Amino acid sequence: MATPAVMPSFSDSDRAELAQEADALIQRLRRHGRGEDGSVTRLVYTAAWQGAMAEIEDWFRSAGLPVRSDAVGSRFGRLSGDSPEVVLSGSHIDSVVRGGAYDGVLGVVIAGCAVHWLDATFGRPKRTIEVLANCEEESSRFSCNFWGGRAMTGRILEGESDRLTDPEGVSIGSAMRACGLDPERIPEAERADLVAFVEPHIEQGPVLATAGDVIGVVDQVVGVRGLSISLQGAAGHAGTIPMARRRDALTGAAEVVLGAERIAKEQGAPAVATVGHLTVEPGGFNQVPGSADFTIDFRHPNEAALDRFEDSLLRMLEKVASGRELEARTRPLIGQPGIRFDDHVCACLETACQEAGVAWRRMPSHAGHDAQLLGSICPAAMLFVPSQGGHSHRPDEYTEVVHIGYGIEVLARTLFRLAYQD
Amino acid sequence: MATPAVMPSFSDSDRAELAQEADALIQRLRRHGRGEDGSVTRLVYTAAWQGAMAEIEDWFRSAGLPVRSDAVGSRFGRLSGDSPEVVLSGSHIDSVVRGGAYDGVLGVVIAGCAVHWLDATFGRPKRTIEVLANCEEESSRFSCNFWGGRAMTGRILEGESDRLTDPEGVSIGSAMRACGLDPERIPEAERADLVAFVEPHIEQGPVLATAGDVIGVVDQVVGVRGLSISLQGAAGHAGTIPMARRRDALTGAAEVVLGAERIAKEQGAPAVATVGHLTVEPGGFNQVPGSADFTIDFRHPNEAALDRFEDSLLRMLEKVASGRELEARTRPLIGQPGIRFDDHVCACLETACQEAGVAWRRMPSHAGHDAQLLGSICPAAMLFVPSQGGHSHRPDEYTEVVHIGYGIEVLARTLFRLAYQD
Repeated sequence: MATPAVMPSFSDSDRAELAQEADALIQRLRRHGRGEDGSVTRLVYTAAWQGAMAEIEDWFRSAGLPVRSDAVGSRFGRLSGDSPEVVLSGSHIDSVVRGGAYDGVLGVVIAGCAVHWLDATFGRPKRTIEVLANCEEESSRFSCNFWGGRAMTGRILEGESDRLTDPEGVSIGSAMRACGLDPERIPEAERADLVAFVEPHIEQGPVLATAGDVIGVVDQVVGVRGLSISLQGAAGHAGTIPMARRRDALTGAAEVVLGAERIAKEQGAPAVATVGHLTVEPGGFNQVPGSADFTIDFRHPNEAALDRFEDSLLRMLEKVASGRELEARTRPLIGQPGIRFDDHVCACLETACQEAGVAWRRMPSHAGHDAQLLGSICPAAMLFVPSQGGHSHRPDEYTEVVHIGYGIEVLARTLFRLAYQD
Repeated sequence: MATPAVMPSFSDSDRAELAQEADALIQRLRRHGRGEDGSVTRLVYTAAWQGAMAEIEDWFRSAGLPVRSDAVGSRFGRLSGDSPEVVLSGSHIDSVVRGGAYDGVLGVVIAGCAVHWLDATFGRPKRTIEVLANCEEESSRFSCNFWGGRAMTGRILEGESDRLTDPEGVSIGSAMRACGLDPERIPEAERADLVAFVEPHIEQGPVLATAGDVIGVVDQVVGVRGLSISLQGAAGHAGTIPMARRRDALTGAAEVVLGAERIAKEQGAPAVATVGHLTVEPGGFNQVPGSADFTIDFRHPNEAALDRFEDSLLRMLEKVASGRELEARTRPLIGQPGIRFDDHVCACLETACQEAGVAWRRMPSHAGHDAQLLGSICPAAMLFVPSQGGHSHRPDEYTEVVHIGYGIEVLARTLFRLAYQD
């Protein structure tokens, strides 16, 4: 493929105006699901979600992009090209419980602004471009594991719409029907027309902000494994059991917590390991803990490195358990392989960064994203903008307006290559 | 004081018969508050407690010991002597929630059997002997911190009977009234006539069983301190926060858990330290813990050693917190000084063990007992019998019948010295 030419124009004032438009829209959208503490809780198929989707639809239309919904309620703002092949860009609309205003939705807004500008500047593209407002990514109401992305990639199983229920016992199928969507039609959401997907997203971590970089070209999503571990010892009186005779499940768990941290640090970045959940029984302040239950989440781009981590972890666990006469049981909690994104889409993003003159870096994503699924059916990659303080999934999630502007420019330059030139 | 003479007679058949009587009574008493799993829940001033107290009263009377109740409902079976000075022996009737059949009540039964035998064998003593069935020790219904012992030592404060309430909101005063006891008369329970107290009790730990010893001569109760500790870090995404940038409250807590264990082991037995309670927030398996709250219970006979432990602990905590950029807050949870028991009463117990020909050892108690309070108003000590497996406060609490027999013999020999000879 020929090296793409530089896109003719994107001025400082274009960038500033688009960034202002994007930021204003983000502030309007945060009303949908806003909590008293400024948090956003916008769960799929709720009134807050419907309000946000309606506002997105209005905005797509006002930008001259006709809108359609797929069978699961994801919205697509369409800029038709000479070819029906679709270059897709965007992200998700739903949030976690008590999350912020940027995760997911900023990607929709950046894509919408970029496509609006391309349309206004260059008119009809060679390939069709669609802006994606994906219905569901966070699994925060149903354990639905990328509902929107699975619909587009044909991975929702028969019967899932009845089986998956929210904490109130409402099935995802009946929640769909309450939004005017027919679960019987889910298979129609599968896409065969995609030729590229680019997902803009907040980084959710501190790497860009710390390095002073403005754009992350995400060339892979790391794999995730999770284990649930139970250590059984012997409960007893905190006074009467001498130290030498204890089978304290919590001191064992503490060794494993620190051991998992040590293994991750020895493997070195980008390996991470986290014990996020831990409970102790019986739990009285004057009782030696008889059992400790906890989880370990570990991530690495490389499957072989995940295997090595798991081996080291299990060996360490066995050593701790036998040294303290504890019984250890493990069961798998999650096992999500990573994905390496498309070289050409990554190269387009890099060239766009160079043309825009921004500080950028290649980086992996350590969180799961829609692009992980869509990347299995078409060439894909992601573009990160900085998260202030590295925060996400919290009310104080924030991305500076100037960074939003560069995100729009880099995406516009990338989509220009993918839809107007390639 | 002259070395006491050997008690004239205590035959193998005496021991066997008394042990059988004691064991049969324990089995009858376990009906009062029995749970389906064989546990005993006998909380002060409940119907189960009243049933057990009525059965104890009947037994005292059938042994020829007149019974009286004090103002808080503790029962005393009295063997009058030439002098009104009282040598007191016994323990408590109440249990923990889902406890066993031996903790507390076995001490009442051992004392009753010993005094019954002394009366039958030697008749009227020089000093009066009373068998104590103490109303409350476990703080398992009200946080009343040795209600019976505090009544006898004049330490119940004005207004406490209204202030202390159970989980249903019933005040201890109204619970007393429901048992026919008048809280206004609590001050009348204070004793000025005690010249000695000997408390038989199950060990609640594994020391005797492990060493093959039958009797523990308890010469001190260790002091207890408790701290509540809160570590604050920063919550975050388990994938996106690199290891080097984490402020993980749980890895910090794990270091403190192991640090407390290390300090206790370095101080050496009898020092013990326990983290029994630990919770983590936000607690999701894929979230770096932002806060960890836990308790530390540490015990040692020596106040200076407790001070050293606390100093080491706080220094270690500060080091962990500063090394991981966590904020640590501590508040005191409990601070109960220890007590060293009376040399003469301990010597009487030792001589009694030697005469009975049992394997015995001096030892501290690492759990709190009535004798801690009574030891502040008269010479006191304790006698431990083995707990099978070191278990207590559980349904499978058990002391072998043969050990109960030796407990009765050693106590009888001790009370002989204290009431018939001294």
